[in-house]
Amino acid sequence: MTEAVNNVNTAAVPEDPQALAEAVAKSMWARDRAAQAMGMRIDSVGPGRATLSMPVREDMLNGHDICHGGITFALADTAFAYACNAYNFNTVGAGCNIEYLAPGLPGETLTAQAVETHLAGRNGIYDVTVRDSKGTVLALFRGKSRRVAGNVIR
Amino acid sequence: MTEAVNNVNTAAVPEDPQALAEAVAKSMWARDRAAQAMGMRIDSVGPGRATLSMPVREDMLNGHDICHGGITFALADTAFAYACNAYNFNTVGAGCNIEYLAPGLPGETLTAQAVETHLAGRNGIYDVTVRDSKGTVLALFRGKSRRVAGNVIR
Amino acid sequence: MTEAVNNVNTAAVPEDPQALAEAVAKSMWARDRAAQAMGMRIDSVGPGRATLSMPVREDMLNGHDICHGGITFALADTAFAYACNAYNFNTVGAGCNIEYLAPGLPGETLTAQAVETHLAGRNGIYDVTVRDSKGTVLALFRGKSRRVAGNVIR
Amino acid sequence: MTEAVNNVNTAAVPEDPQALAEAVAKSMWARDRAAQAMGMRIDSVGPGRATLSMPVREDMLNGHDICHGGITFALADTAFAYACNAYNFNTVGAGCNIEYLAPGLPGETLTAQAVETHLAGRNGIYDVTVRDSKGTVLALFRGKSRRVAGNVIR
Repeated sequence: MTEAVNNVNTAAVPEDPQALAEAVAKSMWARDRAAQAMGMRIDSVGPGRATLSMPVREDMLNGHDICHGGITFALADTAFAYACNAYNFNTVGAGCNIEYLAPGLPGETLTAQAVETHLAGRNGIYDVTVRDSKGTVLALFRGKSRRVAGNVIR
Repeated sequence: MTEAVNNVNTAAVPEDPQALAEAVAKSMWARDRAAQAMGMRIDSVGPGRATLSMPVREDMLNGHDICHGGITFALADTAFAYACNAYNFNTVGAGCNIEYLAPGLPGETLTAQAVETHLAGRNGIYDVTVRDSKGTVLALFRGKSRRVAGNVIR
Repeated sequence: MTEAVNNVNTAAVPEDPQALAEAVAKSMWARDRAAQAMGMRIDSVGPGRATLSMPVREDMLNGHDICHGGITFALADTAFAYACNAYNFNTVGAGCNIEYLAPGLPGETLTAQAVETHLAGRNGIYDVTVRDSKGTVLALFRGKSRRVAGNVIR
Repeated sequence: MTEAVNNVNTAAVPEDPQALAEAVAKSMWARDRAAQAMGMRIDSVGPGRATLSMPVREDMLNGHDICHGGITFALADTAFAYACNAYNFNTVGAGCNIEYLAPGLPGETLTAQAVETHLAGRNGIYDVTVRDSKGTVLALFRGKSRRVAGNVIR
C-alpha cells in the first residue's frame, strides 16, 4: 500500500470509510476552484461514489442555446473525481468516454451520480449518469481512473 | 475573429468553403456564452477544421492543482464543434472520448486543433489534439458528430 | 413504430417479450455463422439482455499466449447484439468501447453478460461484463446501438 | 512474411528499427494462432505501424449477413498489436474504441492500417483505419497501449 508522507495529524484522518470519504471531499473541495466556479454542489459522497449537481447558467450555453457539452462533461468528470478519490489515495482520470443522449436546457439543474463499476489495484472504472430535474438521462459517462502517489488529505 | 456581433444578411452567406467556415464561426461565437466565459479564442477555422486556445486560469484548477479535466475537455469539445459546424449545417456531438496524457499546468495556454477524420452523410468523426505552449500533447479527443435540422447562420 | 414487411406467419411471432426475445435469438443464431464458428453458446436471453459463453480454444491465443483481445471483444459484442435485437427490430452496433482488465487464459471459459443501460427511440446503450469461470472480471464493454429498418425474424 | 517459424538466435536481434519491427512481427506471428486462424496476413510492419488484411469468409458473417463486428474489431486490434509491439517491448492493449461506419460485405477483403498517434513512456495511442477493397472506410479504431515486462523476441 502506498503509505505516503502525510503532514496531517493522523488522528484527524478518519478510519471509517464513509467518514473518510466525506473528509476527503471536504479537503478536495477546498482546492477545487473549477468546480466552485461552475457552481457545482456536492450532494453526497461515500466510498467509490459521489453525487453532484449544477444549475445550467446563462454563461454555460453554447451556440445552439443548450448546455455546452463540455460543461456537462465537467460535471460528470467532477463526480467521477470525488468518487474515485474517496479512499484518500490521489487518483486521476486516465481517459473518459461520454455519450450525449439529450440536451441540458437553460434553467435546468443537472445531477451527476457516479458509481464504482470496477476497482483492482491502481485501476478503476467509474460510471456516471447525468440527469435533469425531471429525471431524463442527458448523458452517460465512463471514466478510467489510475491511482498515483500520495494522499488527498494534506 | 472573436468580435462576435453578427448582423449578416442571409444574402451574404458565402459560397466559398473557407469564407463560409469563417462566417459560421462568427455566427456561433456570438451565441457561445460558455466558450466566451472560459476565455477561449478562435485562432483559425476552415472546412472541417478549427484551432482554439485558452489560458489556464486560477478558477480552472482542480483539487490536485492542475487544469480540471472537464475544462480541458471543454476546449477540445469546442474546437470539435467549430470544425464540424463549419459547413453551416447544425451539427451536434453524439459522443466523445478523451485520453489524458499529461496535465495542464497553472499559467499555461492550451491549444486545441480539430481535424476531420471522416465525414459521410450525417455522421462524422473529428480528432482533436490539445497541447500546451511547449507543444507537449496533453490530451487526445475523438468526437462523433451528427448533423441535425437547420443551418447555423440565422 | 417501424412495422416492416415480415413474411413470417405473424401468428408465429410471440407477443410476450420474453418469448419474443427467445424467438429472435433462435432466428439470429441460425444465421450467425461467426458466433457458431467461435464456439459461443447462448446461455439466456430476455428483453434487452443476453448472456453468452465461450471456451478459450488454442486457436484463440495471441502472440502473448493469452486470449486474443479481438476474440474477447467478439464475445462481448455478440452478447450486445443479442441483447439489443431482442425486441425483434433490426439493430446494429454504431460504436463500442472495451476496457481490458485481466487476461483470458488458455483453457478458461468466458461469460459475457449484456444489460440495457439506456434505450430511447432508435438509440441504446448496452453494458457487457466479461468474466472467467472464477468470476474475475476480464473486460468491460459499452456498446451504442441503433435501430435500422426491418425485423429480425424473417 | 507470414512464414512463421522463428529460430532467431538472440544475437541476431536487429538494431535497425525497421529490421527489428520485421523480426518482432515474425516472432509474434509464430505464436499468434488466433490471427492465423482468422486468415489474416501481415502486409507490412515498421516502427509503430502495421498493415494487415483479411478476407471476409462465410464463417465470419453474423445474423444480419455482414461481417461480424467482432471480427472487424479483431483485425483492427491485431494491426494495433503488431504496431505497438514493433519496438520489441511486450505491449498490451489497455482499452480500445471502435466506430462502425459501413459494413464489411461477404467476399470482401478488409485492410487495417495502424499508425502511432502518441507514445510517451509506457503509454501509447494507436489509430487504425479499416477499409474494404474499394477504399471505403468501414471502421475507425483507437487503441491505448501499455508496455509491460519483457521482450517479444524470445
